[in-house]
Amino acid sequence: MIILGIDPGLRTTGFGVIHKQGAKLRYIASGTIKSGEGDLPTRLKVILDGVGQVARQYQPDSAAIEQVFVNVNPQSTLLLGQARGAAICALVTAELAVAEYSPTQVKQAVVGTGRAVKAQVQAMVARLLALPGLPGTDAADALGVAICHAHSRETLSLIAGAGAGSAAVVAAGLPGPLAGLRVRRGRLVG
Amino acid sequence: MIILGIDPGLRTTGFGVIHKQGAKLRYIASGTIKSGEGDLPTRLKVILDGVGQVARQYQPDSAAIEQVFVNVNPQSTLLLGQARGAAICALVTAELAVAEYSPTQVKQAVVGTGRAVKAQVQAMVARLLALPGLPGTDAADALGVAICHAHSRETLSLIAGAGAGSAAVVAAGLPGPLAGLRVRRGRLVG
Repeated sequence: MIILGIDPGLRTTGFGVIHKQGAKLRYIASGTIKSGEGDLPTRLKVILDGVGQVARQYQPDSAAIEQVFVNVNPQSTLLLGQARGAAICALVTAELAVAEYSPTQVKQAVVGTGRAVKAQVQAMVARLLALPGLPGTDAADALGVAICHAHSRETLSLIAGAGAGSAAVVAAGLPGPLAGLRVRRGRLVG
Repeated sequence: MIILGIDPGLRTTGFGVIHKQGAKLRYIASGTIKSGEGDLPTRLKVILDGVGQVARQYQPDSAAIEQVFVNVNPQSTLLLGQARGAAICALVTAELAVAEYSPTQVKQAVVGTGRAVKAQVQAMVARLLALPGLPGTDAADALGVAICHAHSRETLSLIAGAGAGSAAVVAAGLPGPLAGLRVRRGRLVG
């Protein structure tokens, strides 16, 4: 199963693609999409097209995106929201189910503590995926989201007794109440 | 020239389509897109698909979207930002230039004062477009954005001496420093 992780941002959107077979995770690709210096609609189009291109190129079976912190500056929060909206639009257009995880959940899944710093995430992502060097912070965060999703799917599969190839996804990464729900084309179905 | 106006919202996105010929404005269509009760990616897809469908159906030459207020609740601001991002993504995917106007600019253009209340916007939109009744508030706001855009384009055409069929658009509805810039496929060009 191929998983695409996204770390959204207005200026830089990180992406990470991993392959999961049983408990084994393998690195496929990672990188960033830079939205440039245009006006807002132009920058959102760069994000939409960029994430869409990644989805077409690597044909993931599932996608996950990091939740974002609200900024002290409301205007920044609004801009970040629009960028995240564009990234999600690209994923749902590619007919991918989209799971969401908080930064704390990603750090917990990758480093083992929700209070890890960025350098720890980079180091652990490199170690878990046997990378020859440290990925950039945006790409590392995106790979971290993908790893978090891989672990959550595994957990859910165990809980729900679903097969490895099922489309079982934990919305917002929270197992329990949603266990057994399946996401198809972004829509929750019984 | 056909103009599409959008009033973005997570729950309800208003749209309004008008035809402008010289100084004459004619109503074509208006309505709302309800995002329903799904998870966030599902709701963003409803907005993306809905606005995209309106663009395909009415084939506007230009589009404008209302700027949104930041909410006292940062989480609401973030959600609204994502909804607005989805609406803009639909417009740029339809290869439309997207102008942005503040609520104050829309009220000024429609009612004549930036401090007008919603009921005044509804009444003036109905009057300017010779509607048989009052449009709903979301549709009225969207029609107001389209009217505001029609007026700004006219102003700019006069300032820049551009023909009525030109793609002259004032980014953010502010004439002056940007006069003479043209927007093509959402990108500012000399």
